[in-house]
Amino acid sequence: MPQPTRVTVWHEYRHEHTDPRVAAVYPHGMHAALKAGLEKMLGDGVAVTTATLDQNDNHGLSDQLLADTDVMTWWGHMAHHEVRDEIAQKVAQRVREGMGLIVLHSGHYAKPFKLLMGTNCHLKWREVGERERLWCIAPGHPITAGLSADYIELEHAEMYGEPFDVPEPDELVFVSWFAGGEVFRSGCVWRRGAGRVFYFRPGHETYPIYQNDEIMRVLANGVRYVAPTANTVAYLNDSPNIGTPLSPTQ
Amino acid sequence: MPQPTRVTVWHEYRHEHTDPRVAAVYPHGMHAALKAGLEKMLGDGVAVTTATLDQNDNHGLSDQLLADTDVMTWWGHMAHHEVRDEIAQKVAQRVREGMGLIVLHSGHYAKPFKLLMGTNCHLKWREVGERERLWCIAPGHPITAGLSADYIELEHAEMYGEPFDVPEPDELVFVSWFAGGEVFRSGCVWRRGAGRVFYFRPGHETYPIYQNDEIMRVLANGVRYVAPTANTVAYLNDSPNIGTPLSPTQ
Amino acid sequence: MPQPTRVTVWHEYRHEHTDPRVAAVYPHGMHAALKAGLEKMLGDGVAVTTATLDQNDNHGLSDQLLADTDVMTWWGHMAHHEVRDEIAQKVAQRVREGMGLIVLHSGHYAKPFKLLMGTNCHLKWREVGERERLWCIAPGHPITAGLSADYIELEHAEMYGEPFDVPEPDELVFVSWFAGGEVFRSGCVWRRGAGRVFYFRPGHETYPIYQNDEIMRVLANGVRYVAPTANTVAYLNDSPNIGTPLSPTQ
Amino acid sequence: MPQPTRVTVWHEYRHEHTDPRVAAVYPHGMHAALKAGLEKMLGDGVAVTTATLDQNDNHGLSDQLLADTDVMTWWGHMAHHEVRDEIAQKVAQRVREGMGLIVLHSGHYAKPFKLLMGTNCHLKWREVGERERLWCIAPGHPITAGLSADYIELEHAEMYGEPFDVPEPDELVFVSWFAGGEVFRSGCVWRRGAGRVFYFRPGHETYPIYQNDEIMRVLANGVRYVAPTANTVAYLNDSPNIGTPLSPTQ
Repeated sequence: MPQPTRVTVWHEYRHEHTDPRVAAVYPHGMHAALKAGLEKMLGDGVAVTTATLDQNDNHGLSDQLLADTDVMTWWGHMAHHEVRDEIAQKVAQRVREGMGLIVLHSGHYAKPFKLLMGTNCHLKWREVGERERLWCIAPGHPITAGLSADYIELEHAEMYGEPFDVPEPDELVFVSWFAGGEVFRSGCVWRRGAGRVFYFRPGHETYPIYQNDEIMRVLANGVRYVAPTANTVAYLNDSPNIGTPLSPTQ
Repeated sequence: MPQPTRVTVWHEYRHEHTDPRVAAVYPHGMHAALKAGLEKMLGDGVAVTTATLDQNDNHGLSDQLLADTDVMTWWGHMAHHEVRDEIAQKVAQRVREGMGLIVLHSGHYAKPFKLLMGTNCHLKWREVGERERLWCIAPGHPITAGLSADYIELEHAEMYGEPFDVPEPDELVFVSWFAGGEVFRSGCVWRRGAGRVFYFRPGHETYPIYQNDEIMRVLANGVRYVAPTANTVAYLNDSPNIGTPLSPTQ
Repeated sequence: MPQPTRVTVWHEYRHEHTDPRVAAVYPHGMHAALKAGLEKMLGDGVAVTTATLDQNDNHGLSDQLLADTDVMTWWGHMAHHEVRDEIAQKVAQRVREGMGLIVLHSGHYAKPFKLLMGTNCHLKWREVGERERLWCIAPGHPITAGLSADYIELEHAEMYGEPFDVPEPDELVFVSWFAGGEVFRSGCVWRRGAGRVFYFRPGHETYPIYQNDEIMRVLANGVRYVAPTANTVAYLNDSPNIGTPLSPTQ
Repeated sequence: MPQPTRVTVWHEYRHEHTDPRVAAVYPHGMHAALKAGLEKMLGDGVAVTTATLDQNDNHGLSDQLLADTDVMTWWGHMAHHEVRDEIAQKVAQRVREGMGLIVLHSGHYAKPFKLLMGTNCHLKWREVGERERLWCIAPGHPITAGLSADYIELEHAEMYGEPFDVPEPDELVFVSWFAGGEVFRSGCVWRRGAGRVFYFRPGHETYPIYQNDEIMRVLANGVRYVAPTANTVAYLNDSPNIGTPLSPTQ
């Protein structure tokens, strides 16, 4: 029987304490909802841990936990700057070495994501609770398995608009339409070193996005998609002088 | 002084003869409007020829004209199937050898485009004259030079919706928003052999799209972008046995 | 228990009848070696069928078999032109609808591959039995799982050299070095419609390439990688008029 | 008459002072050779400034010079760590805002390059003066204009080997072959924000690489290719709240 994928759900966990609307939607925190949703979708296939910004000096991310994580999800918003640079660098480095990373919503400005993209990750935004449609533009992509239609509709969402300042994605899976007139590349995949990064836009804190089965289906698919494959060619963690060349008679 | 880029505007030229609305917008044919627009934008930098489906056995595309064309633009819709396979193959082959190709609007189903893409190029559509916004998602891209904003707005347009069945573009420049709820990858670039292909969505026959300066600016930029560079490494027009390897003592 | 992946190994099966050197390496045909190798690597995870050029009017590829195939492998060389256009089109269309396709060695000139690439697929070649090293340039890629090093070495191989006339791959996994002075993109992945295509270079008929465990490991990984995911968003097999847009009050 | 492209050649300029072999090849510094070579190739089309690590607190890169630079070339090796983080960040940010950047040889470890890639940029290396062939794998690419063949041969070069830990390039132009058995992606292009980055491998300090006309031809082409286009859509240097959406009646 295959080992479960070890997922660490990292969460800023601040809005829930200061904004009653958020606490109403996520009484146990957004991380609890994400954990429950992934477990509902993936069952025994997943073993989910959570970690939060204020847990300890490492924001809950010990070296041991990082080493034992196959896939990390990351949600942050109001306190990106409080994430210690050293921890952000460790997360980014784990991705290069093979860990999968799923960056959610306002995590577009999270330190590990910016470190991996090499860009500023700017975008436009507006918060009027308008309608959003996430169009799947890559039929057959594993991240879209089990969806009931070729788009996901959210009645009320914060708007994110282009230009989204990220490198051209290796794979573009979803593009969002917003009622107010904008579009956004909402589902993007990049490889960095031996690891895969999946950015998925939905997740504003005042809407029950992570209780939506279609959204959680995409995230569960994403976990599978960015999880490292066992026994792949090792990441080169240095620039070695590799010595002797083939000789002419070889 | 640099030589002008030699552009051949190819046009189906049928709707103008059967639909008075189209004839009213393009009294001399859409090809005449495209020619005039490119000349207005590029002046001496361009030498524009036109060719149409019914001109002769070659649809106006003699071997000599094909050989003398740097960039071809292609608009077709109701008569794709009347383009002879042999001519479509010649156009596609010229692209592989270095000619630039700009495919317009309903040209998504044109034979040369499908031959170069390797896909069926399906999409969704609706014709209610709704509002379209073409968002530029690649700031700084040469194809966007001179635009007055980061989107182009068309008050009335036919809708094209995703999924658009084309290979992942090498460069994605524009994504359209439509009032009725859809999105579309409206500006895409691919390399095929030594040539570049630019697909640009706007151009429905009953709207004066090719009299819009912003649209013609993009097309003029596109001509420059896909035009072949002089003296580049030659396209390999065969699979040669290249004989002697380096010897061990070399 | 998951269903096995249904693989159809398609083989030209001509060299074995005319060249005693090939018959010596592959006494039951190259397709038998490929079938045995995939079964050795994937066990119950795979159900392998074979089909060959001369089997019947459909080259062994009935509509039923095509519909029941998850992944097809394709080896051809001396008789590409004998593959009927209609069958080549059917194979390409099944890829667009989601079937995985693995194209082997001289299959770079196979009709279905050329239809899907949109290019001529030219390359350089030389047959002196020189040394080849396939370097893995994508550490962590699922296609490289289980390899013993970051390159595969073949003591004697036919040389294929750049430029290889294919579209820029969506993913570049292997690049070959040849003793005689050339390089080649030997492992490439593209998406076409809802299906994935994997081109893998090794496989000259006079060398026992498909009895090499490292090579068969890559092919087994490739089968898994290009196999369709169940229940993904359906491929759009037409361009539908999708009718009513969202109304302003929605 | 078009304005010349303003190029700033940045150079570490240390090896020349400590290694007589380097001083013999580049008596006035490698930057002087690069400046002379670009001027020879591009004439009035270019206005070249140089800047070096030890020039002043800003390593010769004042805010004014950065603002006035269209394209920067960067060579560094033994003193990457002495480049102040603040200056590296400014260079990377200028790229995102539209400046072109050409990174040379051992610059694969330069701070601005690593910031823009988001990876560690590791590779393998060996210094035995072996033969290198840079194969052009993108016929027709503007960066290859004017080359005399489809590869450039260097009799003596340091070896760089894969895996090269960079994101999948947007465009792969050159792949190197080395006599000792390795390959390397030697010419790569990425977009980051509104700017383009071109990495070009050749340039070891003890070989007269930048006096080779074929190499300087590539670099001159590269300058043209990554130079910003005038009046393109502006880079979004923030994440603005863009206020009022389209109303339903618009």
